[in-house]
Amino acid sequence: MADTLEPRAAIRRMAPYSPPTAGRHGALRLDFNENTVGCSAHVLEFLRQHLSREALAVYPEYGEARRELADFFGVSPDQLLLTNGTDEAIQLVVNTYVDSGDEVCILKPSYAMYRFYAEVAGAQVREIPYEEATLAFPLAALLEAITPRTRAVLIANPNNPTGTGASVEQVACLLERARHAAVLVDEAYYEFSGLTLLPHLAEHPNLFVSRTFSKAYGLAALRMGCLISQAANIAWVRKGQSPYSVNAVAVLAARAAVQDRQYVRRYVEEALAARELLCSELDRMGIPYYPSQANFVLVRAGHRALELRDRLREAGVLVRDRSYELPGCVRITVGTRQQVRRLVEELERIW
Amino acid sequence: MADTLEPRAAIRRMAPYSPPTAGRHGALRLDFNENTVGCSAHVLEFLRQHLSREALAVYPEYGEARRELADFFGVSPDQLLLTNGTDEAIQLVVNTYVDSGDEVCILKPSYAMYRFYAEVAGAQVREIPYEEATLAFPLAALLEAITPRTRAVLIANPNNPTGTGASVEQVACLLERARHAAVLVDEAYYEFSGLTLLPHLAEHPNLFVSRTFSKAYGLAALRMGCLISQAANIAWVRKGQSPYSVNAVAVLAARAAVQDRQYVRRYVEEALAARELLCSELDRMGIPYYPSQANFVLVRAGHRALELRDRLREAGVLVRDRSYELPGCVRITVGTRQQVRRLVEELERIW
Repeated sequence: MADTLEPRAAIRRMAPYSPPTAGRHGALRLDFNENTVGCSAHVLEFLRQHLSREALAVYPEYGEARRELADFFGVSPDQLLLTNGTDEAIQLVVNTYVDSGDEVCILKPSYAMYRFYAEVAGAQVREIPYEEATLAFPLAALLEAITPRTRAVLIANPNNPTGTGASVEQVACLLERARHAAVLVDEAYYEFSGLTLLPHLAEHPNLFVSRTFSKAYGLAALRMGCLISQAANIAWVRKGQSPYSVNAVAVLAARAAVQDRQYVRRYVEEALAARELLCSELDRMGIPYYPSQANFVLVRAGHRALELRDRLREAGVLVRDRSYELPGCVRITVGTRQQVRRLVEELERIW
Repeated sequence: MADTLEPRAAIRRMAPYSPPTAGRHGALRLDFNENTVGCSAHVLEFLRQHLSREALAVYPEYGEARRELADFFGVSPDQLLLTNGTDEAIQLVVNTYVDSGDEVCILKPSYAMYRFYAEVAGAQVREIPYEEATLAFPLAALLEAITPRTRAVLIANPNNPTGTGASVEQVACLLERARHAAVLVDEAYYEFSGLTLLPHLAEHPNLFVSRTFSKAYGLAALRMGCLISQAANIAWVRKGQSPYSVNAVAVLAARAAVQDRQYVRRYVEEALAARELLCSELDRMGIPYYPSQANFVLVRAGHRALELRDRLREAGVLVRDRSYELPGCVRITVGTRQQVRRLVEELERIW
């Protein structure tokens, strides 16, 4: 008998996924689409008030948060699930609907965790490519890829790393075509795009929307997401969720975050102004990029992509190379106009 | 076409699992085996120092914590994985080794999440019952239940809710018999039993040990666990783990917790003294119970189990009914002698 333990074939087949998760301290972090200035002061104050030795010793309770967040999103509490970041929302949708061998449709390139959890489940993954010229939502190709064996469709709107989005009508079209499948619309960048499927929940019994507190809200450290769908779906999904997957600090922070709407509104306004500034500076410098509906811009740096990333890093500015999936492309998060000016200064020196 | 989405058969088949997760505030919480006085003051201080608006906005980094915790557990960093509570450790072991239809062996009764994640994976669950008379580790029956198709064995040592444990030799026996399967030994109550398989990691290529900060360390709110195995196994398990499943506050808290060893030593001493006191009071009152190696005692309340739980709750003392799996049994967490005296006062009134 072999003296090593053999994992499942599905795990053996997977490509390793290791985003950079160290050495980011002290740098200007434009590499993970986080909020670049920090969360609302009200959130920190709320945490300081509620954290105590006793509170930390008690398993999390979710009732109040579920009611308050449901209210914030305009749904009922039984239509919403708190999740350990968006990642758990993706995993739950896959675990609830996708058996080994079932088909899952995803776009390419997109957020890595769609393929990741589909592969863990042993699914057949069908990747529908974006066309490089525009990176526009490939609706026709996606509709064509859906078969009677498709059990889930996992997309982000707007998409990451492309920054491009689908219209509500396009997603509705997808939802109709894939009525037999769970369709997850990951709205991680909703606050920047202003476009959401949530008002259409009642029309689509196969629609799942996820939201996160890791981007505009500035709470990536805490891992807080929400999964929203019709109540019957949420009841099924809940059956496969650990009763304590979301930590109590994330729950407190999310409750405080939705109380301070002004903070997020202002941060989003600043990020959109910063994105406009970055785009006009890129135009001026003759560096091509794709139009974005999110808090990042995908820049076409061509053969100098890796060099650009490395030289920016030397200057203390982190950006994310995406050339392994989109040749020559570098993704740059936008936060404030001041940060954009700092980045542009370095770009001018390097370019 | 149906207008509702059908989940996987594995999800449909599952029994709902909903431990009480609300209304525990303000009561004497002897129902979840938490630390009943709160975590170390050093942990709270460390969190207060490190929590800032900026820190909350950044995705977690694990390198330092992995090194420090590995050092604490006496293993190397590549033998250890941080997990979102023990629950994620269980799920990861199952997802790495168990395909749909594979056999998983668990004991009955035991911690509910072993069966839970095995069922989510679509496994065939074989339950090996404890004998009610002693609730001693059913080694012979467990060894007999293992077949060539067994892919995982999931046990807690000491076990919950029985409180009884297996010896290192018994577990070694199991590890030998099940060399072709992943064997998870959940040591959530290690600090109270003093018995661990960790020193035997090198001898058993199929051994996985999990530890938690939710019990003795008083950090249940934060969801912090560790999974430990040989480096080759951890590398496989890591492939299927979300890169950010553990939140940054849990990481900070665990780092601080292992710096304050004196706190945990004292808390454990007090809990063991409290357990002794509770047992002698139960003896005095003629209420039977099972011997325990953990921070709880399983009391044989007979036909009055539910009544006992309800009347204690009315008096502000929460204990956990287990009669659905062990007829007439109620599980009572022990924390301090003072809390035991409070409980006994109420018991004398009720019994």
